[in-house]
Amino acid sequence: MVSPRWVKRLSRALGRSKVLDRLEDRFCYGFDATGILRVPDLVVRPETADDVVTAVRLAFEEGVPVTPRGAGTGYTGGAVPVGGGVVLAMERMDRIERILPEEGTAVLGAGVVNGVFQAAAERLGLFYPPDPASLEFSTLGGNIAECAGGPRALKYGVTRDYVLGLEFVSPGGDLLRTGLLAEGPDAGYDLAGLLCGSEGTLGVITRCALRVIPAPRARRTLLFSFETRAMAAGAVVSLTSERVVPSVVEFMDESCLLAVESAGATETGFGREQLVLVEVDGDPEEVAEAGLRVERAARAAGAARVWVASDGEERDRVWAMRRAISPALAKLAPTKVNEDVCVPRGRLADLMTRVEALSRQHDLRVPVFGHAGDGNLHINFLVDGNDPRERARAERAVGDLMRATLDVGGTLSGEHGIGLTKAPYLEWELGPSGMRVLGAVRRALDPRGLLNPGKFETYRGEPCS
Amino acid sequence: MVSPRWVKRLSRALGRSKVLDRLEDRFCYGFDATGILRVPDLVVRPETADDVVTAVRLAFEEGVPVTPRGAGTGYTGGAVPVGGGVVLAMERMDRIERILPEEGTAVLGAGVVNGVFQAAAERLGLFYPPDPASLEFSTLGGNIAECAGGPRALKYGVTRDYVLGLEFVSPGGDLLRTGLLAEGPDAGYDLAGLLCGSEGTLGVITRCALRVIPAPRARRTLLFSFETRAMAAGAVVSLTSERVVPSVVEFMDESCLLAVESAGATETGFGREQLVLVEVDGDPEEVAEAGLRVERAARAAGAARVWVASDGEERDRVWAMRRAISPALAKLAPTKVNEDVCVPRGRLADLMTRVEALSRQHDLRVPVFGHAGDGNLHINFLVDGNDPRERARAERAVGDLMRATLDVGGTLSGEHGIGLTKAPYLEWELGPSGMRVLGAVRRALDPRGLLNPGKFETYRGEPCS
Repeated sequence: MVSPRWVKRLSRALGRSKVLDRLEDRFCYGFDATGILRVPDLVVRPETADDVVTAVRLAFEEGVPVTPRGAGTGYTGGAVPVGGGVVLAMERMDRIERILPEEGTAVLGAGVVNGVFQAAAERLGLFYPPDPASLEFSTLGGNIAECAGGPRALKYGVTRDYVLGLEFVSPGGDLLRTGLLAEGPDAGYDLAGLLCGSEGTLGVITRCALRVIPAPRARRTLLFSFETRAMAAGAVVSLTSERVVPSVVEFMDESCLLAVESAGATETGFGREQLVLVEVDGDPEEVAEAGLRVERAARAAGAARVWVASDGEERDRVWAMRRAISPALAKLAPTKVNEDVCVPRGRLADLMTRVEALSRQHDLRVPVFGHAGDGNLHINFLVDGNDPRERARAERAVGDLMRATLDVGGTLSGEHGIGLTKAPYLEWELGPSGMRVLGAVRRALDPRGLLNPGKFETYRGEPCS
Repeated sequence: MVSPRWVKRLSRALGRSKVLDRLEDRFCYGFDATGILRVPDLVVRPETADDVVTAVRLAFEEGVPVTPRGAGTGYTGGAVPVGGGVVLAMERMDRIERILPEEGTAVLGAGVVNGVFQAAAERLGLFYPPDPASLEFSTLGGNIAECAGGPRALKYGVTRDYVLGLEFVSPGGDLLRTGLLAEGPDAGYDLAGLLCGSEGTLGVITRCALRVIPAPRARRTLLFSFETRAMAAGAVVSLTSERVVPSVVEFMDESCLLAVESAGATETGFGREQLVLVEVDGDPEEVAEAGLRVERAARAAGAARVWVASDGEERDRVWAMRRAISPALAKLAPTKVNEDVCVPRGRLADLMTRVEALSRQHDLRVPVFGHAGDGNLHINFLVDGNDPRERARAERAVGDLMRATLDVGGTLSGEHGIGLTKAPYLEWELGPSGMRVLGAVRRALDPRGLLNPGKFETYRGEPCS
């Protein structure tokens, strides 16, 4: 709980309109895509970096936890204020300050929505590659804090690869600028890099400088079907070891296709098959040749069917199908536990076999899709979360999945982060010395543990409303 | 000084052959390319990560500083053991463990020489882009610690962009593995990223996993001459905002060309001109088109002469000229103070004007070359370091250069790091709060300040032999 006196002090410092204290308002800022809810004591909607400094300083003086929040689209509870206190909702810091084509740079507020930025860049013939599924909603600040990826990460890398500088407020209330946003970009430790993927535990990102690149002039989209998951996994490996780097290599298993069809989202035209969606981009001649090379490689890997988008409309249709998977799966069961793990590409087939085994063992439906080219799979456990026995089964299955992922040399998170939901497993991956270093870095910047508490570490408190 | 008892203990733990205590041996490990010398009390040449753990643990138990060292090719004193104590010379950890073309990954000891790795990758049709001028000598561990760049950084990025995982020994003596070298790559903070560019202050890198990419199938090398530095700078901006990303855009001023010719290194065929060297790479068709586009842009920017390498031999010749600059400049004066600053590309012309002004003001010859496409220039002050007045003049000029760089929105270091020589200026760039965060992170990992002391912070002690 926060004291009314302190709330008054904060409101006076920021202006009343930036502080929300009514339950119905606070409620809206208490959950993310996991559905986990913890209503914060207060919501602050800063409009400037100075507002963030003020809020962080006053909160930390008072010992009030602060949880930064972009759009709350995360899948690991990163924005859920499990420690109570203040949610800093960054949505109003949504100014596109500049996009400079000749420099290949952009400077934006942390609250700018990814898709809004993409569209603005496109109008200038530019391209911002990171494309998480949430791009129509999620903010760049949130993308950076979680180091978001997306289908194009295979060729173009993840959010971290586009960050040229950050402005952020340290837990001590200092306003820091790094990289392009500083007087100079790179001297000293790479703090911008450290903030990427720090899940809001090391600082509140207020502005960012991002790299934009020339838009590719041509694209080719291909779809291949395979009889088994193992064959599809094998194809992914051979497609990515050709002398061409596809921009996209996505996998969708048959149950994802069925879900899309039964949701009536689109007519896929594909049946009980495993699909691999490939895109190549670049200059027109290059793309034509790369497309042929990819097609040859897919056939050699045993593709049953080959489909090539003949125009932009067909391309849009296949992408609509791909994007429909996640919402379509959500309709199949009351609760969809969307896990996100990443393994070396060569171990994809192993991971798929293990997922099949644990689906049988725990008697759960487990559709699989994801950014296979990066070894990054989204593994969805469909359960009824209101049934305690089913929920317990899903929890055991998730633990087994994490263990299986680490067994084949993978990592707990491809792009969704650790947050709250994977915190219990983090030590399995990092070991005691890794946890020690993580804790040391965190304590160095946030000695009192007030910034996004409960993330990375196991949080055993009971979320409540 | 280290106590003989402790040296005996360390020798017993590691084996006598890994410990060098004779003055003539220690001398060789006391300097880098700056010429600054501080003979360490002891040199340890570990052969395994366990050796590093042992050395770090015993040293830190005893309160002995440890300075890690690759090949000592750095330009900022990063490997100079100004705090005394032990130099950890990593050269024996030079095993190429594996290069996996199908994964696009390699795992190597920190002591592997960059050029040796490049050659090994090439034999498999692969490509490791980071190419610092020191590549025939410098080690991958040193490259990572300094986040080395090189001409190809423009298209391909710097060392940081290729690090998929690290094994390192923390100042506490823990052996940590991150990324591809861990059970899982990316959970928690990006410690591998934090180690990149940490200049040996946060951990001793023992092994690395690096990304390798398919080698481009074709290259085109072009050379353009301009009458003035400002025109060349303008051309750099327009060349990099075409719808093509050159792999290389290098600048060499006329005095660099004269130095190369007077050193007899090569017949350049160019005279009192400013040169811009451009390379495009990719698939053959793409390269042909990109080459034409670059040529058009250079002509539009006022190129006086255009030269295109017609074959590999001509290409090698122009690169030999480029690589000859640094040693040729060193022959022009007893001391070459090679500074390395980086500004936004659009401010290159401003920086060049300021360099010309400070060359006149301090009456110093200041040849300029470098990775102009990245805004990264190597600015060389030619002086006689044995003349105290000349040395003082050079020091003032360096300070003015740093101030000018920050004034135009640049950074103190493009790729050489801060180390010892730029430590006095770091606070100009980071400000007090930036220094505070840097110090907090450093103290978190190294509470006693025993790992590579004196770097990043101002070191005012007198180096001695």
